[in-house]
Amino acid sequence: MGVKTMVKSDIEIAQQSHINPIKEIAETIGLTEDDLEFYGKYKAKLSFETLKKLQTKESGKIILVTAINPTPAGEGKSTVTVGLGDAFKKIGKKVVIALREPSLGPVMGIKGGATGGGYSQVLPMEEINLHFTGDFHAITTANNALAALLDNHLQQGNQLQIDQRRIVWKRSMDLNDRALRKVVVGLGGPVQGVPREDGFDITVASEIMAVLCLASGLQDLKKRLARIVVAYNINKQPVTVGDLGVEGALTLFLKDAVKPNLVQTIEHTPALIHGGPFANIAHGCNSVMATKAASKLGDYVITEAGFGADLGAEKFLNIKARSANLKPEAVVIVTTIRALKMHGGVAKSDLGQENIAALEAGFANVEKHAETISSFGLPLVIAVNKFVTDTEQEVKALLVLCEKKNLPVALTEVWEKGGAGGVDLANKLLEVMEKGESNYHPLYELSDSIEEKVRTVVQKVYGGKDVEFSTKARKQLVEFEKFGWGNLPVCMAKTQYSLSDDPGKLGRPENFTITVREFKPSIGAGFIVALTGDVMTMPGLPKVPAALKMDVDENGNAVGLF
Amino acid sequence: MGVKTMVKSDIEIAQQSHINPIKEIAETIGLTEDDLEFYGKYKAKLSFETLKKLQTKESGKIILVTAINPTPAGEGKSTVTVGLGDAFKKIGKKVVIALREPSLGPVMGIKGGATGGGYSQVLPMEEINLHFTGDFHAITTANNALAALLDNHLQQGNQLQIDQRRIVWKRSMDLNDRALRKVVVGLGGPVQGVPREDGFDITVASEIMAVLCLASGLQDLKKRLARIVVAYNINKQPVTVGDLGVEGALTLFLKDAVKPNLVQTIEHTPALIHGGPFANIAHGCNSVMATKAASKLGDYVITEAGFGADLGAEKFLNIKARSANLKPEAVVIVTTIRALKMHGGVAKSDLGQENIAALEAGFANVEKHAETISSFGLPLVIAVNKFVTDTEQEVKALLVLCEKKNLPVALTEVWEKGGAGGVDLANKLLEVMEKGESNYHPLYELSDSIEEKVRTVVQKVYGGKDVEFSTKARKQLVEFEKFGWGNLPVCMAKTQYSLSDDPGKLGRPENFTITVREFKPSIGAGFIVALTGDVMTMPGLPKVPAALKMDVDENGNAVGLF
Repeated sequence: MGVKTMVKSDIEIAQQSHINPIKEIAETIGLTEDDLEFYGKYKAKLSFETLKKLQTKESGKIILVTAINPTPAGEGKSTVTVGLGDAFKKIGKKVVIALREPSLGPVMGIKGGATGGGYSQVLPMEEINLHFTGDFHAITTANNALAALLDNHLQQGNQLQIDQRRIVWKRSMDLNDRALRKVVVGLGGPVQGVPREDGFDITVASEIMAVLCLASGLQDLKKRLARIVVAYNINKQPVTVGDLGVEGALTLFLKDAVKPNLVQTIEHTPALIHGGPFANIAHGCNSVMATKAASKLGDYVITEAGFGADLGAEKFLNIKARSANLKPEAVVIVTTIRALKMHGGVAKSDLGQENIAALEAGFANVEKHAETISSFGLPLVIAVNKFVTDTEQEVKALLVLCEKKNLPVALTEVWEKGGAGGVDLANKLLEVMEKGESNYHPLYELSDSIEEKVRTVVQKVYGGKDVEFSTKARKQLVEFEKFGWGNLPVCMAKTQYSLSDDPGKLGRPENFTITVREFKPSIGAGFIVALTGDVMTMPGLPKVPAALKMDVDENGNAVGLF
Repeated sequence: MGVKTMVKSDIEIAQQSHINPIKEIAETIGLTEDDLEFYGKYKAKLSFETLKKLQTKESGKIILVTAINPTPAGEGKSTVTVGLGDAFKKIGKKVVIALREPSLGPVMGIKGGATGGGYSQVLPMEEINLHFTGDFHAITTANNALAALLDNHLQQGNQLQIDQRRIVWKRSMDLNDRALRKVVVGLGGPVQGVPREDGFDITVASEIMAVLCLASGLQDLKKRLARIVVAYNINKQPVTVGDLGVEGALTLFLKDAVKPNLVQTIEHTPALIHGGPFANIAHGCNSVMATKAASKLGDYVITEAGFGADLGAEKFLNIKARSANLKPEAVVIVTTIRALKMHGGVAKSDLGQENIAALEAGFANVEKHAETISSFGLPLVIAVNKFVTDTEQEVKALLVLCEKKNLPVALTEVWEKGGAGGVDLANKLLEVMEKGESNYHPLYELSDSIEEKVRTVVQKVYGGKDVEFSTKARKQLVEFEKFGWGNLPVCMAKTQYSLSDDPGKLGRPENFTITVREFKPSIGAGFIVALTGDVMTMPGLPKVPAALKMDVDENGNAVGLF
């Protein structure tokens, strides 16, 4: 800090790091070569036999890493998750990290992957950010095979009497491709199919991604796939994958993708990286199978969920943990001084200047998330991810704020120092877990009405005043009850930037109303998505995409990937 | 034969076969564990270092397996290729098989993979027929990333002045999906992209597939990708991948896909399975890198090319072998008595009846292909792939026909007997190769005009009278010369069912004219496609797709996959 150094890029640090054969990493958590299905020397999937064998073992403690509402300043949630795992290992704990897989779309579009940063990264970073073990490709294939089979059903006589204007299943690609958001397919005359409106979502927004991440195993996966609603028939009744009779084929396409992937951090801490549903239209957590396997393999599991605590953590706690019968023990809320200053009204270009007043104002955001986590019955620690630009006064002010509000806090420097930079946070967590036991419980009952469930999240998690439902949404609520979907949890699709549904309202907005304009049933995943505002399910590329800088050197090594 | 037996399905035979760890297979051809990048226990890629190391080794003899014009009766070309490899191994030869990878489209659509059949199959059959090592997914991704980057270029100001009506790059999917043949993308208003006509090809029809299969290595791959023409600008000049500046990113997406995959047959013969371009719009052969590696690892390479000798073999000999500097030593032309009877006018439903006259009439088809192979300066053997329904009289008649025309012939029973069923063919081939040395030469010079090259193929390979070019095609010929593309080989896109461009003309049609309606430049692959008749680049699914029968059992094993 203060000393001017040549800063290496993430990929340089990753490529210069020593990576151990994955079988050696596996040995540290009691797995042998026979438990693994290798993808090269440094990646492996856990076999079905291994997953079965693990079921009878005792479970370790699950720690969830979440964050404040994200800002363009960056919070480094993945980096803290990786660094915290390394810190647990450093202080002698048996730990396994459980992360989501990155999507190729953002990798190609903007600088920034999902494999951590600096000295807190997972390896092999290039592989994980590119095709990894092919899971997302398998999901894309299953998604699009379903679409092809559905359009073929229309073409071959439409026995199920599907209303072609009411097909809700979209195609997908694991790319940022705005031109595919709204398309017309089936053009060219009677032998080319039935013309209809369609669109593509990015693969992480596919319901199959959510299904795979919530499935407890292969047979549960098949059952969930069969329940997916793809369209409505001319009598407005739902048509499912099961009605089409293709859940077996889709399961076959996913039979390897459903197995968790084992890799390692730069400090050789084992990490299971598996699945990656969006945290708006889906639940934003890595797979249940990976989280469970991690809890059987480690005394501690460090896992994370997408976006801020109002989205990813809320869904981890109200949807994933409930559905999978997981009991989280503690939560880390990642913040930075820079991001809090933005929540306090500072523009990104002015972040270099000390601004205690803005920091204090922005602190309301982290405070709200802390209250939410407490309302789930969980102990927590605020992790302040330090940046070189943070002033001593700012750091001090933030610690004082936490102390005043009785919030456990720890500074982390994991980007620069790896696990060593996370030891304070790890010790604070252990201390907090010893003192205050987890009394985890979801915030609503499944028997509550969908309307009540949405209201609970809006009021207890977002701090809003009330919810309004559009006429369409109200009509859907009646239909959904009729279809027997009323007892499913809700999955809120909301902007990640604000606690409200207005991305411009930073800090801790109050007295706001959330408008639910539409519901989207994800019956395979097992939740009802409530859409508020515009939700982007297929991102676009920026003017200068990261792809323009990517290359491969003569030896086949990636260049320009972050 | 004659005895009624319970016939096992291909997948049952494959799953009941013993498979050896791939490292043991590798050892039999002088490779160690360090030469391999494992994908599970039974699949591996050859590393770049290994490929480099092999370059200095002496080359084995390359034997090409081709066939008569395919009929609905089935010829079993892949099965004979695999069985012949096993036969070479059985008689003590060091042999490596080199095949194409199957596409998921046909796997999902109709019963029939590309992994052989009966006791002449490659293993693990399910994996190879599903995602294998992800090569096709990587190609699909590169193809669609290019499309997304191109549409993004339009959206972000269109600096290259691309004429959006003259974009020739299409999106792709490795599925049979007729609804995607003709689509409109970019709908929904100004922030959703520029509306334009588009379409999807199946991945095996993507130029990137052809590029990958003709590339000599990673750097050559990048150069070829840069040359791909994606559109024309407002001045009607070609716009390439290099102009967009994304060849580095595309190469990065393909850096593992470009490495050949090692697997084994049921009899543990090593097989390199890599790439799979269509044999109409592309050249229909497995990758140059795999064929070359196979020739360095074995004293004999058994490889195959798509469809009949008029398509796959012509392109292997005029395009692939010339471009890669390969010298094939002999050719096998696979036929069946059933298929020849169909070429002689018998309907599929009547194939059960003995019909010597039809067989004799249909023989003209195999005779023409034999003449063609001879005109390339290559010795050949006719392989008669025996079926239980063939009568003794029919077999005798066919052997007499071959003898009369001085065509070396051997019967094979590889489906039922594996390598043992191909020993006669292997011995005949060795005999033929000893007697008549290969005097391989392409049929035309690259310096011939495009028109002359097309005419040569039509007259010498198809036995046609002449070629007609549409007004559009004539205009293109002038343009292409101007763009400097005149010295590329031609890649004929023609129906596979007939020597002519009319799929109904079986046997050996004569005095016909072929009409070239349009040319398509594949500058990255390095050839000019001549389109005759309608060429299907995105197949559709049948009324009852194979996907309806597919499933996975409780242990994760594939069910209903052939």
